[in-house]
Formats: sequence, structure tokens, C-alpha cells
Amino acid sequence: MITSYILKKLLPLPEKGLLHILVKHTSAGITLNENADPDVRADFESFMNKLIPENDPVFTHTIEGSDDMPAHLKSSVIGSEITIPISGQRLNLGIWQGIYLCEFRNNASGRRLVLTILC
Amino acid sequence: MITSYILKKLLPLPEKGLLHILVKHTSAGITLNENADPDVRADFESFMNKLIPENDPVFTHTIEGSDDMPAHLKSSVIGSEITIPISGQRLNLGIWQGIYLCEFRNNASGRRLVLTILC
Amino acid sequence: MITSYILKKLLPLPEKGLLHILVKHTSAGITLNENADPDVRADFESFMNKLIPENDPVFTHTIEGSDDMPAHLKSSVIGSEITIPISGQRLNLGIWQGIYLCEFRNNASGRRLVLTILC
Repeated sequence: MITSYILKKLLPLPEKGLLHILVKHTSAGITLNENADPDVRADFESFMNKLIPENDPVFTHTIEGSDDMPAHLKSSVIGSEITIPISGQRLNLGIWQGIYLCEFRNNASGRRLVLTILC
Repeated sequence: MITSYILKKLLPLPEKGLLHILVKHTSAGITLNENADPDVRADFESFMNKLIPENDPVFTHTIEGSDDMPAHLKSSVIGSEITIPISGQRLNLGIWQGIYLCEFRNNASGRRLVLTILC
Repeated sequence: MITSYILKKLLPLPEKGLLHILVKHTSAGITLNENADPDVRADFESFMNKLIPENDPVFTHTIEGSDDMPAHLKSSVIGSEITIPISGQRLNLGIWQGIYLCEFRNNASGRRLVLTILC
């Protein structure tokens, strides 16, 4: 899970503050969502592929593949940066919330994040 | 209105800074939108229900009800956290902007927010 | 480009920190996306107009024009505020990322932004 991976890079967290995460890419996203049932992640991807499908006739930017323009759109609809409160040296998320790093390309190598803590 | 409810919890605001609001739930959202005509809020809800409908055949996560998976998706499309600038001890919003706390489940009890001010 | 316009207002940037940008309007948006091929911006607009079209039969808030309610919805789906990390006195964006100021009305005069830096 990306949530625990991110935490490992940051510990110990300050007593209070904000953690900001930027995905340095225009075909990936980051969001908070349900961290328990993996069906939610599967349905999330299926529905996003239906909402913003490949090969839409309005697309002219197709040279990088049929999944490229949908990936750009998903990146702005879901967002590519989030801010999370820190309280008591922990991320102050809801009990079901986890961080989703969303890969919107069919084939991509690694993704880079920028993590910033202000307190 | 959630805008004035939130302000009451925070006053007095600092001279300058940022207010961050997290909704600690994966089936609700928070966003800025038009705070004048209640028709906008009604149309907002109607359209979101049409954009991300219940009972979509791609959904497999249905055990918590037909409104559960759409609520998760709406939460990430609208977002579950926002940041608002503070200037002159006031939220520096546009004249028509207010904070929408969006309930995406058909039946939910209270929702918890985390409010953080940095300056 | 709005990215360089914003930077000109802010230079010099601090060594480290966060830049927050709010669009003070409910019918415009701000997001990060691909800053190279102008076809991406054109396709972005075409697809958003298809995803959230004018004259949807659910809309009742029509007095300000057929583009008004779609503009409110696009504003919340794309978002009207973003936060960008600052590292080494520069915006720490990905190589392809730029700031899109999204105008969702068919005719609008100028738009006002609030820029806040915390470090």
C-alpha cells in the first residue's frame, strides 16, 4: 500500500501539521478512498475507464496511444495532489481512508512523488 | 450552511494563512461552489447522480448497498479535502463561493471533519 | 501561460514551501496537466463539454444561461484550488506539468486568483 510506503519515508511525523503529496506526472493521480475491500479499487478503475474511455471521437491528441488522452483527463478529474492533516504524529485520516496512487496509463515505469510537511 | 458552522469553530482567524479541511470519510466530499441560489445545489446533486449512477453493471462492491460504490467514486471525483486562503482574519473566498459538504450516501449519520490552520 | 504569469508575481520564491492558488469563482477551475502539446488543452475542453453538457434536462438553474450550471459542475469536478510544492526556489512540478486556469463560461471577463506561500 502506498499509504504505508509514504509513511515509512517520513517517520517520525511532527506533532501537528500538514502533509502535501504531489504526483509529478500528467497521466497519474492521487486521491483518498476506501482502504479495506479491494473490490472498491477494482470498481474504481472499471468505472473511470467507462466515464473517460479510450478512442473518444473528440480526441485529436492520439500520437502517444489511445490511453494517453484519457489518462490526462483522469489526472485532472481525480487530481494529482492532496493534503492530509497530521495530528499526534499520525496522519489524521478516517478509519477507512487510505491514499490511492492512481496509474492511468496502460504501461508506465515508476512514478515520482514530492512529499512536503509544513507545521 | 457549513461555511458559517466551520467559521464559528475557528474564530478568531489569524491575519494570514491557510485553512485545510478534511472529510474523514470515503463516501462524502467537500468542494467550493455557488452559495447563493439553492437550485445550484439541487442541480449539482441531480447531475452527479446521473454522471455516477447506482447499479452500474461494472460494480462488484455492492454488499453495502447500491449507493455505496457511487458514493466512493463521487468522493474522489469531487474530492474529500480542500484548502482555503485566510487574509485579514477572513476566509478569502470569492463573493459567490461557499463550502459544500457533500453527502453521497442515501442514509448516513454525522460526518467528521479535521480543520487545520497554518500561518 | 498562466504558469509563468503566476511565477512572475511571486519571484523570488523561498527555498522550500508550498504555493496555494485559489480561483475566486464558481464557474472556473485550476488544475495541473500537460504543458507541451496544445492538442491536450483542446481535447481537455472538448471532452469536458461532452462529459458535462449544456441543456441537460436535470438542470433547473438556467436563468444565467445554458453554460452556467455546467460551469459550476466542472468547477467542482476539476477543482478551484491547488497546492504546489516549492523546492530550491522553484515550483517542484514534473517536467510536463503546467498550471491550467480553466475558463468554463462561454463569455467571462477577468478572473481573480489568491496566491499564498507558506514555508
